[in-house]
Amino acid sequence: MTDRPATPLLDTIASPADLRGLSDRQLRQVADELRAETISAVSETGGHLGAGLGVVELTVALHAVFEAPRDKIIWDVSHQSYPHKILTGRRDRIRTLRMKGGLSGFTKRSESPYDPFGAAHSSTSISAALGFAVARDLGGAPEHGIGDAIAVIGDGSISAGMAYEAMNNAGHLKKRLIVVLNDNEMSIAPPVGAMSAYLSRLYAGKAYHGLKDAVRLLPGPLQEGAKRAKDLFKQFTLGGTLFEELGFSYIGPLDGHNLDQLLPVLRGVRSHAHGPVLLHVITQKGKGYRPAEGAADKGHATGRFDLVTGKQHKAPSNAPSYTKVFAQALIDEASRDDRVVAVTAAMPDGTGLNLFAERFPARCFDVAIAEQHGVTFCAGLAAGGMKPFCAMYSTFLQRGYDQVVHDVAIQRLPVRFAIDRAGLVGADGATHAGSFDIAYLTNLPGFVVMAAADEAELVHMVATAAAHDEGPIAFRYPRGEGVGLEMPERGVPLQIGKGRIMREGADIAILSFGTRLSEVLAACETLDQQGIAPTVADARFAKPLDRDLILQLARHHRVLITIEEGAVGGFGSHVAQLLSEEGVFDRGLVFRSMVLPDIFIDQASPEDMYAVAGMNAADIVARVRALVDAGANAARRA
Amino acid sequence: MTDRPATPLLDTIASPADLRGLSDRQLRQVADELRAETISAVSETGGHLGAGLGVVELTVALHAVFEAPRDKIIWDVSHQSYPHKILTGRRDRIRTLRMKGGLSGFTKRSESPYDPFGAAHSSTSISAALGFAVARDLGGAPEHGIGDAIAVIGDGSISAGMAYEAMNNAGHLKKRLIVVLNDNEMSIAPPVGAMSAYLSRLYAGKAYHGLKDAVRLLPGPLQEGAKRAKDLFKQFTLGGTLFEELGFSYIGPLDGHNLDQLLPVLRGVRSHAHGPVLLHVITQKGKGYRPAEGAADKGHATGRFDLVTGKQHKAPSNAPSYTKVFAQALIDEASRDDRVVAVTAAMPDGTGLNLFAERFPARCFDVAIAEQHGVTFCAGLAAGGMKPFCAMYSTFLQRGYDQVVHDVAIQRLPVRFAIDRAGLVGADGATHAGSFDIAYLTNLPGFVVMAAADEAELVHMVATAAAHDEGPIAFRYPRGEGVGLEMPERGVPLQIGKGRIMREGADIAILSFGTRLSEVLAACETLDQQGIAPTVADARFAKPLDRDLILQLARHHRVLITIEEGAVGGFGSHVAQLLSEEGVFDRGLVFRSMVLPDIFIDQASPEDMYAVAGMNAADIVARVRALVDAGANAARRA
Repeated sequence: MTDRPATPLLDTIASPADLRGLSDRQLRQVADELRAETISAVSETGGHLGAGLGVVELTVALHAVFEAPRDKIIWDVSHQSYPHKILTGRRDRIRTLRMKGGLSGFTKRSESPYDPFGAAHSSTSISAALGFAVARDLGGAPEHGIGDAIAVIGDGSISAGMAYEAMNNAGHLKKRLIVVLNDNEMSIAPPVGAMSAYLSRLYAGKAYHGLKDAVRLLPGPLQEGAKRAKDLFKQFTLGGTLFEELGFSYIGPLDGHNLDQLLPVLRGVRSHAHGPVLLHVITQKGKGYRPAEGAADKGHATGRFDLVTGKQHKAPSNAPSYTKVFAQALIDEASRDDRVVAVTAAMPDGTGLNLFAERFPARCFDVAIAEQHGVTFCAGLAAGGMKPFCAMYSTFLQRGYDQVVHDVAIQRLPVRFAIDRAGLVGADGATHAGSFDIAYLTNLPGFVVMAAADEAELVHMVATAAAHDEGPIAFRYPRGEGVGLEMPERGVPLQIGKGRIMREGADIAILSFGTRLSEVLAACETLDQQGIAPTVADARFAKPLDRDLILQLARHHRVLITIEEGAVGGFGSHVAQLLSEEGVFDRGLVFRSMVLPDIFIDQASPEDMYAVAGMNAADIVARVRALVDAGANAARRA
Repeated sequence: MTDRPATPLLDTIASPADLRGLSDRQLRQVADELRAETISAVSETGGHLGAGLGVVELTVALHAVFEAPRDKIIWDVSHQSYPHKILTGRRDRIRTLRMKGGLSGFTKRSESPYDPFGAAHSSTSISAALGFAVARDLGGAPEHGIGDAIAVIGDGSISAGMAYEAMNNAGHLKKRLIVVLNDNEMSIAPPVGAMSAYLSRLYAGKAYHGLKDAVRLLPGPLQEGAKRAKDLFKQFTLGGTLFEELGFSYIGPLDGHNLDQLLPVLRGVRSHAHGPVLLHVITQKGKGYRPAEGAADKGHATGRFDLVTGKQHKAPSNAPSYTKVFAQALIDEASRDDRVVAVTAAMPDGTGLNLFAERFPARCFDVAIAEQHGVTFCAGLAAGGMKPFCAMYSTFLQRGYDQVVHDVAIQRLPVRFAIDRAGLVGADGATHAGSFDIAYLTNLPGFVVMAAADEAELVHMVATAAAHDEGPIAFRYPRGEGVGLEMPERGVPLQIGKGRIMREGADIAILSFGTRLSEVLAACETLDQQGIAPTVADARFAKPLDRDLILQLARHHRVLITIEEGAVGGFGSHVAQLLSEEGVFDRGLVFRSMVLPDIFIDQASPEDMYAVAGMNAADIVARVRALVDAGANAARRA
């Protein structure tokens, strides 16, 4: 507790309303204290530090000028919402960020009325804000009413198609709507794409310098010079930008760390805006905390860290992460086959493709936050004779689902999907869970769908995907470290549609798809001691299914249990479909399919989340025991 | 046959190579003949007429200047590809368009090497073309090699986020790439959105007039004045457009029906382009066929028609279409509840929302081809206290899948999804099949998922959705006409999660989800005559399941069959999961789940497509008989 910064003024702020009585000078002090509090809190919890530090002044300014929760402030992605959470009644829980039972690392409707629209995936804020603006004008009356709708969106997020769709619609509808473009020239990774270059030109252009001159003439607080603020507002409106072509009034660029710019302009916007307005604000990610400012990712995401040195407390790990194993296996394949190329949607570090790009810069493509384009770009590459690996998180691949169906599957193009963060992911919570990819890929005709049971399997699956040129193929693997196996020197393609028996047992068979295998094997150790010896198989493939293996298991066991890190409709459902078509259920089989439960599971460690899901070793033991006992009872009764 | 137009020059064109020996004057004649042939063919087959007529000259010019199949000409959506098909060796089959066993109504890789990338959903062409361009530069060598990559995209399609994502990436990569913006100010519906307004400003601006002057100075064929064509090319390059901000060289607008403009400019582009080029071409949808030119939709899609009058041959129908029933039911709900609003993504006519918009113009929103935004805009409306109905085709809702998960389901916002064209759709073929929505919605926590068994049920489901404010709810219904039931005067909300028994029988139960119900009942009439009397139930809900009903059916029947117009992973899989969890399979149950087969089914009538799927009445009869016979044999053996 003694490490905590002194925050005398911030201590008096219970809700944003308390900001509205302060002078601009006091608001600057609040901002300084808020920055110190944010750094201190994240040093204890870990989390997304850089984004929040970049918007400290903007957060204070928005809450001082607008009146949440009636005004709807919508933070895009919401990595940057920690300062907002501190100001909106959640300071007492800010040191529980991203922990089990604690505050979400994102905005969340169920957490606070000050979070009118939750986020975690990028580029949704303008659509949501437009929805509020239209609802307001039609008399929609949710709790707290609706005043202004304000989307705060980063330069990375605004390059996604969805944001463009929303601006296109907003420019057409002409409703009053405020978009704050938080331009830190830095999304999670350095931004790419023509839009980013365009924003840099705006930033470098004379507009900014013109503004600097204008700032010398700035009025004091709003009450002193509403008219002058209005003039200033007009002066900032520069013609001819891309945003104006889309129907927005463009204001900027502003210095996002200078409250003397932010406050009067926001007041002017609030007083005078009609129609959609885009406020271009330049900020610095990681601002005010030297270790973050100096980091390549500007302190994007961090574990708990030492306040003075910025050094992260990290538990040592013996096993490599799946992400890194994937990257190295892909580099290995690419070194032998120059048709191998890799595509990421703004996640080079998260997917490990930064390593690939170091080795093969000309064969690695970061398409920006643009999963729709990314998938079809891969389809074009495949049609052009290349071997594209489309590396995306399970949850983000959802953005390219139609393209997977329409451009890849229907055309049977050999795009390789490397699906990272499959299953439950931990601190990022429900929005980042990779729960649905097995279901939404496995019912696509012609797809091959694999899941790696361990890191050695992942190496072989990369090789399998590289070798498979007959159609689309996907392999999924989880967040985190492998189980610590010895790694194969080189990946060897697996036989498509063939699983493997891990141990032979009797009476009960467990058929695993993916990394629950280690939990299954751990469960079997316990069960062995209780005189129950299940057979365990690793399916490897959800599509095509290993019919022979599955029917054999059904034939030779009284109980068959499938387990997968995914929702119903996936592997277990396809096994059930096979068993029913083959008439296995006609004669009776104790069949159970262990899948993720029908709830969105809040953040915790992956282990804790799987405990909620009832899919850890202990749960498997309990499940098997219950079935054995039921069987014994049935036998006794018979 | 006598009605067919005389096409002496077109008759000599076996492939695009034959165009390249012709003079520009002869190419104009080819274009005229090609237009006549297109009109004549579509009068026999029905199909998308207007789009093709708008690009007749552009098609001739592209094939005369570029060298397909080495150069990759990619038609976005490809409604406009009929003239292209006629020129690329498919003229002999052009009168089989969209028929069973005939040519696809879209480009299709498996149909011709001149279709390097198939399409049907919009806005994919730039991504695919960029894939080819990158593959070319990396030495990708598919059959025919890779020369230029050319995307031809309409003004409606370019307003979708995906196209923007692709341009953003192309502007960054700076590869040689040609995008032809086919601007007919008319997608399927009149275009909406700020981008469309922007294009109109470009069109109206002095650029166009400047071009007209320049055209007087046009050189003859390329061989006469390559240098002058180059100068011309430069002259057309006007600065400062939105496309240039994204890194494209912008040329235009050109008159897309004037080969004297198109040919030299395309030759100039071919000779001199480096980096991405956008060629803005103004065309007239339906050009050259008066009934199409005069129609509100410019002859977008038509049935077979009389060549002289343009009047369509249409079979009379006694029953209203599901689309119209939905629209009228929604209007009815909206007339009693002013919180009801409706959202379409560029399909006001196709979804019936044109009728809603007539009655409630301020409460109907066409967001353009922007399903991602459309879904989240609905989520914002719902958060703002409205009752949004998001009306989309099943296949297009795939574009908004992540938004359904992330913005609607996780936040449990009461967005109502009206899912039209569910199941197999007929002439549009595999790309438009609504096969996956049951699977991808039913495993989302908190969702309610319904399917209407007939048009009266649809009315009640609209009422159910309007009344359900606790979370997201979806109802699906097929293309085409209802069964001809008497319609309820007013929709009455159904009890959530409760199905209905349609007929009581014995031994065998069929549980239907959706409009296969009429086939099931027809099958039962046949089976009755054979002494087999199944119980039939309409599930109404895939989520939540009617547990009591399902377990009752399982308890009291030897055989339980589910049937749905969707792929595996949906309704039948959820029923199987319930039955296995409840231990029903432990004791044995003849359970079968009739779902769409694991293939993409080519176009035919819906009836013929369901015959391929094995899901018509005769197939159901056969399925039941086989199970009965197997049961009898088993009993005899026992």
